[in-house]
Amino acid sequence: MLLLIPGPVATRPEVRAAMAQDVAPWDNDFRAIYARLRERVLAVAHGVPGEHATLPLQGCGHFITEAAIRTFIPPGGKLLIPGSGAYADRMTRLAREAGRVPVVMPIDPDRPTDPAAVGAALAADPSIGHVGVIYSETGSGVIHDAPAIGAVVRQAGRRMIVDAVSAFGALPLDMSAQPEIDAALFTSNKCLEGLPGMGFAVARVDRLQASVGQAGSWSFDLESIYTHALKAGWGSFRFTPPAQVLMAFDKALDFYEAEGGQPARLARYVANMRAFYDGIRGLGLSPYLPREQQGPIIVNVHAPADPAWDLQRFVDALKARGVLISNFYNTATPTFRVGCIGAVTPDDMRRAVGAMAEALNELGITRREAA
Amino acid sequence: MLLLIPGPVATRPEVRAAMAQDVAPWDNDFRAIYARLRERVLAVAHGVPGEHATLPLQGCGHFITEAAIRTFIPPGGKLLIPGSGAYADRMTRLAREAGRVPVVMPIDPDRPTDPAAVGAALAADPSIGHVGVIYSETGSGVIHDAPAIGAVVRQAGRRMIVDAVSAFGALPLDMSAQPEIDAALFTSNKCLEGLPGMGFAVARVDRLQASVGQAGSWSFDLESIYTHALKAGWGSFRFTPPAQVLMAFDKALDFYEAEGGQPARLARYVANMRAFYDGIRGLGLSPYLPREQQGPIIVNVHAPADPAWDLQRFVDALKARGVLISNFYNTATPTFRVGCIGAVTPDDMRRAVGAMAEALNELGITRREAA
Repeated sequence: MLLLIPGPVATRPEVRAAMAQDVAPWDNDFRAIYARLRERVLAVAHGVPGEHATLPLQGCGHFITEAAIRTFIPPGGKLLIPGSGAYADRMTRLAREAGRVPVVMPIDPDRPTDPAAVGAALAADPSIGHVGVIYSETGSGVIHDAPAIGAVVRQAGRRMIVDAVSAFGALPLDMSAQPEIDAALFTSNKCLEGLPGMGFAVARVDRLQASVGQAGSWSFDLESIYTHALKAGWGSFRFTPPAQVLMAFDKALDFYEAEGGQPARLARYVANMRAFYDGIRGLGLSPYLPREQQGPIIVNVHAPADPAWDLQRFVDALKARGVLISNFYNTATPTFRVGCIGAVTPDDMRRAVGAMAEALNELGITRREAA
Repeated sequence: MLLLIPGPVATRPEVRAAMAQDVAPWDNDFRAIYARLRERVLAVAHGVPGEHATLPLQGCGHFITEAAIRTFIPPGGKLLIPGSGAYADRMTRLAREAGRVPVVMPIDPDRPTDPAAVGAALAADPSIGHVGVIYSETGSGVIHDAPAIGAVVRQAGRRMIVDAVSAFGALPLDMSAQPEIDAALFTSNKCLEGLPGMGFAVARVDRLQASVGQAGSWSFDLESIYTHALKAGWGSFRFTPPAQVLMAFDKALDFYEAEGGQPARLARYVANMRAFYDGIRGLGLSPYLPREQQGPIIVNVHAPADPAWDLQRFVDALKARGVLISNFYNTATPTFRVGCIGAVTPDDMRRAVGAMAEALNELGITRREAA
């Protein structure tokens, strides 16, 4: 079964096989693996050892995002969020329920955030301390230019939190050149091609140290994770981690480095996206984004206008052909989404296009343009 | 390698093997597995369908404990915690940092909580709304009588949260007979013998419905988990779960039911504990608890008085013999802890005793009574 939901993404069999063992998370052998993992991830972010730290947190992308908001933004503090889709909405809700004040800046859902507009919003409200950016909006497939937005934030003397969940490892991120970033957030199961179960922040140490005691949650206090790892001197966990997920993640990083790291992974995903994008246009389907706005992570496709269209039936017909996509809409206009990430190649994407051709025919979908 | 840390606990190879596959958590096939999982777990708790619900939460025992505190206790609300060890301390800290008010009732660390003392504390302070009980104190191995304490809480008209993390599935729990319990908490990796990565609450639906909006955290709002699962109608996740952990957990429940459920599992663990307890006494070592206080989950053993004693060297010598125990102390007086839970038998425990005999000899530990 080819998982294009994403995520979790499709993984290599060697990565999955690394889970099939008992692991003792506080054992010295595992501590060494854990410390190495944190170093490897720091290198992907171009973090500077001593200046940045990798902070793993049990759970999912929502959890690491809430943890960063709680850790770096004081209660009642304002967070500017360019409102671009489902994952911007997620950050907004997480911040609000945690007692921080999200300030949503409306933008078109099919366009990247204009850095100048962020600058104007910050100039208009000096009480906004942070900007929350979704690097790759999984809801729409739009890439927001985190480096360019960061330059504006830096110039305005504010701080930035980057939700890089569906970007990290594929889109470039150089934290050594972006000192305005308090934390970049990601998980084990997207572009690094591990299994789900762990979130990560790569964060500035000075900002962690300036944020002691404001999280209002022991579980989600990234500063506590940092202090605990330091205290142990060799990188231990505060709480029981999903150790099998971490073993798989370590194996996934082997493949990542062997492939050539971020540039190679991005190149493969771009090739995946092009093969798919061009393929579905050849079928008469309409991508949600124009080609120049289309990021390499997710391609959203308009639901066809044909009255016989039914997403679940389409998903089932694809599944019968070994291709799995999500069975829900994530945009205001109905679009189904397809991931170009994971352990998949352009040939796999062409296979997915072939399966879609057959499924559309089976369902009798002839009017394929946007509904 | 025999894991007696616990946890995570030793698991069966079939359970681990269930992780080595890609899983799409929102796919209809997985939804059915997920719904079945929740029903199976509810049955273990003797929950009443419609009256109780199973609420899975990504992460570890700390997370599900914080989630229950936030969901059921309003900000500023008081939680009485019999202070009996490391996991009572954990609940205390989680409550305090979440803005609730823990009221610690000191008790001897090597004795179970006296239900009458809980009743007196509740009578003395009518503003205490909840009691937090650690069913099995992993720090010491003491079992606190959750049903007896619950009767006192019920009589006083208060509510109870049960940290059953290292008890659930082995010690009896009948939520249908304990309406005072808002939630019982546990994880995938202790007595149900799955892998780590998921926490669970079995909670009262009426109390969830009475607790809307007070969690102060979207991530940790158990009511939101309940509502979301209901809304979807077929039991979906809010956020990406560690799906492989859930596949393994489902397989672990097969073995649990095949073994004969809670009574059979408890009987095996009691036999494990007795084999180990008697075995180490035969070596001249001193258990932390007298036999009549010794629970079946964890046996703590006093560090020997011999000046040559060194926990890490002992752990390493055991590891060389295929037995893994924790390399840290969890009690005020130094005791090393050994789990009697997981996919292990009395023969395994006797093997561990044999390895300890060899390790003590190798290290030249002749004075073996408590330091």
